[in-house]
Amino acid sequence: MNRAKTELGVEHLYNDFEKMVTDGNIDAVCIISPSAFHFEHVEIAVKNNMPIFCEKPLATTLDQIYDIQNMIKEQNYTKPFMLAFMRRFDPSYAEAKRMIEAGEIGKPFMVRCYGLDPIKYVKTAVPFAKYSGGIFLDMMIHDIDLARWYMDSEVASIYAAGDCFVEDGFAEHDDVDNGTALMRFENGGMALFFTSRTCHHGYHIETEIVGTKGSIRIGSNPNKNEVVLFNDNGAVAQFKDYFMTRFQEAYCNEIQHFVDCVLEGKTPEVGVIDGVKSTEIAYGCDQSYKEDKLVRL
Amino acid sequence: MNRAKTELGVEHLYNDFEKMVTDGNIDAVCIISPSAFHFEHVEIAVKNNMPIFCEKPLATTLDQIYDIQNMIKEQNYTKPFMLAFMRRFDPSYAEAKRMIEAGEIGKPFMVRCYGLDPIKYVKTAVPFAKYSGGIFLDMMIHDIDLARWYMDSEVASIYAAGDCFVEDGFAEHDDVDNGTALMRFENGGMALFFTSRTCHHGYHIETEIVGTKGSIRIGSNPNKNEVVLFNDNGAVAQFKDYFMTRFQEAYCNEIQHFVDCVLEGKTPEVGVIDGVKSTEIAYGCDQSYKEDKLVRL
Amino acid sequence: MNRAKTELGVEHLYNDFEKMVTDGNIDAVCIISPSAFHFEHVEIAVKNNMPIFCEKPLATTLDQIYDIQNMIKEQNYTKPFMLAFMRRFDPSYAEAKRMIEAGEIGKPFMVRCYGLDPIKYVKTAVPFAKYSGGIFLDMMIHDIDLARWYMDSEVASIYAAGDCFVEDGFAEHDDVDNGTALMRFENGGMALFFTSRTCHHGYHIETEIVGTKGSIRIGSNPNKNEVVLFNDNGAVAQFKDYFMTRFQEAYCNEIQHFVDCVLEGKTPEVGVIDGVKSTEIAYGCDQSYKEDKLVRL
Amino acid sequence: MNRAKTELGVEHLYNDFEKMVTDGNIDAVCIISPSAFHFEHVEIAVKNNMPIFCEKPLATTLDQIYDIQNMIKEQNYTKPFMLAFMRRFDPSYAEAKRMIEAGEIGKPFMVRCYGLDPIKYVKTAVPFAKYSGGIFLDMMIHDIDLARWYMDSEVASIYAAGDCFVEDGFAEHDDVDNGTALMRFENGGMALFFTSRTCHHGYHIETEIVGTKGSIRIGSNPNKNEVVLFNDNGAVAQFKDYFMTRFQEAYCNEIQHFVDCVLEGKTPEVGVIDGVKSTEIAYGCDQSYKEDKLVRL
Repeated sequence: MNRAKTELGVEHLYNDFEKMVTDGNIDAVCIISPSAFHFEHVEIAVKNNMPIFCEKPLATTLDQIYDIQNMIKEQNYTKPFMLAFMRRFDPSYAEAKRMIEAGEIGKPFMVRCYGLDPIKYVKTAVPFAKYSGGIFLDMMIHDIDLARWYMDSEVASIYAAGDCFVEDGFAEHDDVDNGTALMRFENGGMALFFTSRTCHHGYHIETEIVGTKGSIRIGSNPNKNEVVLFNDNGAVAQFKDYFMTRFQEAYCNEIQHFVDCVLEGKTPEVGVIDGVKSTEIAYGCDQSYKEDKLVRL
Repeated sequence: MNRAKTELGVEHLYNDFEKMVTDGNIDAVCIISPSAFHFEHVEIAVKNNMPIFCEKPLATTLDQIYDIQNMIKEQNYTKPFMLAFMRRFDPSYAEAKRMIEAGEIGKPFMVRCYGLDPIKYVKTAVPFAKYSGGIFLDMMIHDIDLARWYMDSEVASIYAAGDCFVEDGFAEHDDVDNGTALMRFENGGMALFFTSRTCHHGYHIETEIVGTKGSIRIGSNPNKNEVVLFNDNGAVAQFKDYFMTRFQEAYCNEIQHFVDCVLEGKTPEVGVIDGVKSTEIAYGCDQSYKEDKLVRL
Repeated sequence: MNRAKTELGVEHLYNDFEKMVTDGNIDAVCIISPSAFHFEHVEIAVKNNMPIFCEKPLATTLDQIYDIQNMIKEQNYTKPFMLAFMRRFDPSYAEAKRMIEAGEIGKPFMVRCYGLDPIKYVKTAVPFAKYSGGIFLDMMIHDIDLARWYMDSEVASIYAAGDCFVEDGFAEHDDVDNGTALMRFENGGMALFFTSRTCHHGYHIETEIVGTKGSIRIGSNPNKNEVVLFNDNGAVAQFKDYFMTRFQEAYCNEIQHFVDCVLEGKTPEVGVIDGVKSTEIAYGCDQSYKEDKLVRL
Repeated sequence: MNRAKTELGVEHLYNDFEKMVTDGNIDAVCIISPSAFHFEHVEIAVKNNMPIFCEKPLATTLDQIYDIQNMIKEQNYTKPFMLAFMRRFDPSYAEAKRMIEAGEIGKPFMVRCYGLDPIKYVKTAVPFAKYSGGIFLDMMIHDIDLARWYMDSEVASIYAAGDCFVEDGFAEHDDVDNGTALMRFENGGMALFFTSRTCHHGYHIETEIVGTKGSIRIGSNPNKNEVVLFNDNGAVAQFKDYFMTRFQEAYCNEIQHFVDCVLEGKTPEVGVIDGVKSTEIAYGCDQSYKEDKLVRL
């Protein structure tokens, strides 16, 4: 709290979430507490009809998520509620959406989503597996949200697979280091997913949308910077190594969108329903790979 | 037959397959007849203990395929029997295999296979759907063979999806224009498939193998030639538009491999078992997407 | 000035440059006035021993440039003087320099520099040609600075060419729309330059440094964003369309570097000598193409 | 000669060039003798009015080249005479020419040519420098021919540079390991050249043609095959390592073109004049870099 005061110049500081929300000094709340506290903090903020920006996941159990849905309805919550799927605010992902809406690839019917974390962070990720809800809820959920967004339909059935191929530590927490999934959508569309914690070449987020008139690929090419090195190995280019560098601009755009919604009373482009749906799907993946069965939603 | 005589200078010409095989004028037989005749021609050639190069698919029903397996065993067939999966003989696919065997990407655990045919041939493909066995048997089978080859394991379970998204004509023949699949392998590995008859940018065959130490992509980039055009659209490059241009070298290498096997009495790298397994899997995909269920092999 | 006051919240506003510099309210000055005023403003700032950030070019005649060099010496000017070659502060250009200093490509001996402006701005560029000093002084000067920086040597001889290939309007101002140059450096190194005002595919700044052990390319690939569109044209990707988007981060880093130099009393990485040298070379190019002769410095 | 007889099955074998040409057993002659013998062999073939396919260079001195020009005129030589600039027959280079003729990039006004040989052959190249005529005549001549072809104009002035940056052995033979040139054409066009014997990443032949409506790049991207390796270094792709693999198809197309010309009595697309002009220009480059002066043709 000292740092917030001195470095960031925050005037009002609180030890107590409820006091902060009710004290009359703030206009909106960003919930970036550990996932396990999301439900509690959302509940207080909704009760006080405070605009909410909530980090993903919305909550850590399906029950909590449905509770949030209900309390919003019952308490006549009227403020902007935004769920933090920042990729939608990345210039490239946003441009792809614009192109699709402009009809450039016709009607989308297949989405492929890659979310690959660099292997250099794999050891530090192991202990978090205890709380993260697993690779599908913690990582693939971003891709699930993108697939829903681009396909503009909801998932009907899921088959998922995964295992500890590199780092056995995840097994202790009933988690895996790599996972895949195939989903059918209600509109007949299909989606392929690959999520990894063991990517050697960097942080590689890649998405492809195939439509009836063409297709779009986002993030297929190395993007660390504009440099390509030519040496005895050949032509060598690099991917960024971290989500903070890849999605820096997306994070800024995302929070700006929330601020705009609060100031102008608009409904955020990502809301509670996106948190509910993506979490349901992620749990479906988890169940599918663990029980090796088809899951229908 | 006139063309074979005059243009190609073939000396001995036959109207009858059995006569050709038994006449004593040929050393080996390449079966490139319509798929429906494969079984009959293979049967005659096996009976006469003639070296066989057989176009995929090995046969059009599972029963026929098991029959071929059995007759080879029972009749003490001792000659090279090669199934024509030409991609294995493409320089890039072959180099990827060498790199994997050299340990460059560690142990493979995920394979992604794209097989996209150009949309300009889609109308002419519709009538063939009557006999082709469907998109999984006719097209995805190449990718299924690649996945087995790179993963070095057999498929345990399959979930597939597909539909007529662009060309409804396939529905009449109980076929689709685009299909996807997720497979689990016996060794825990996973594979993602996307097969399409409606690709706007050309003939796009792309394969990715992800291992514990790195990954390989084959065919991700435009390959029509070395030309990139820069104009008001941006930087524009093209894919080849046909399998004959993309795999020209593979076809030459493939038949050379068969000739070498015949001359040196070696066992071809692709044999009956590869035809049996890939067909079983393709039929599994077909069943999975049609009944919307998980199929175990 | 109203906008500076209301929108940007600038407290002290001046109509008079000298008054601003002497009034005691500012710590440093950024000279971003039209090029024709650079000399006058630099003179005042030097006289008052004020830290200076000066947009390129340093001044519009060689005489003025030498005057600035002299006045800095004679008046015992002790403050940071920074010339605004922003590309040096672009993350990719900076990384290339780091790689070279780390020996990754051995000793550089060839540099190729492309500076291509989008054709959509060509009409608006024509009237500015009256004052800009021509394509070599106005545009190629950025590339000249890069070549000197990477080669770490000074130019010995120049041959340049150019013409109005697309937009004749430049001829009225004794200017061209496209120019090239070949330079020999004192250390034996060589550099190739291509500068254009008529690029159809966007804003394309590309630099290559070839060394004894490898080479580096910066900016060869489309960089508008991470999107590639696949349609009937093939694979289509785009370059950025403007210097403000391509070098946004460079501009921020550049001014931050100046601020750091002022606060910590450091010497900026780009100084008066870089302005002097690059201007001499640009004038040499101008003379070379106009008189079709070799120019030695 | 034994190998020609046994392996290739050549029926008529000769120790004497003149006897071969006059013996009545051949229809055309391919002169692929060492460069120093080209003049002598061409002379005999022209005297006997025999169709000629001659490897570059046409001859090793300008005097010899002019002699060839004259003897063709004076002796009423009427047969196809083809000079072996194989790159024109490469599918990518040929497609670029077609695109230009179709107006896709408007009128070409700038050509950039890279011809980079892999460093692994540099040691073996040193002794050949004694006879090769130097880097401009031996290597850059291919690029000079391309520039003339695409620009459709002749060179007016040249400035060239070069040095031994890596391998001092070339200096003994008055040659260099890397060279550059800038040329102005009679139509106002410009060309930039970079030729190297010390390329670390492979055999890299790259050409760019810039026109009033767009531009074309040939060979900018790695082309060893379709494989990209992703590992701890990043994304790694390779260039071919040898002219025989890069231009295999060009060599076949080239000789086929000659055969067609002979059979159909057509004039080859590359003739004596192309040999004369490219040699004049290469000698101009040689003179320019050695005397550090501008050379006008």
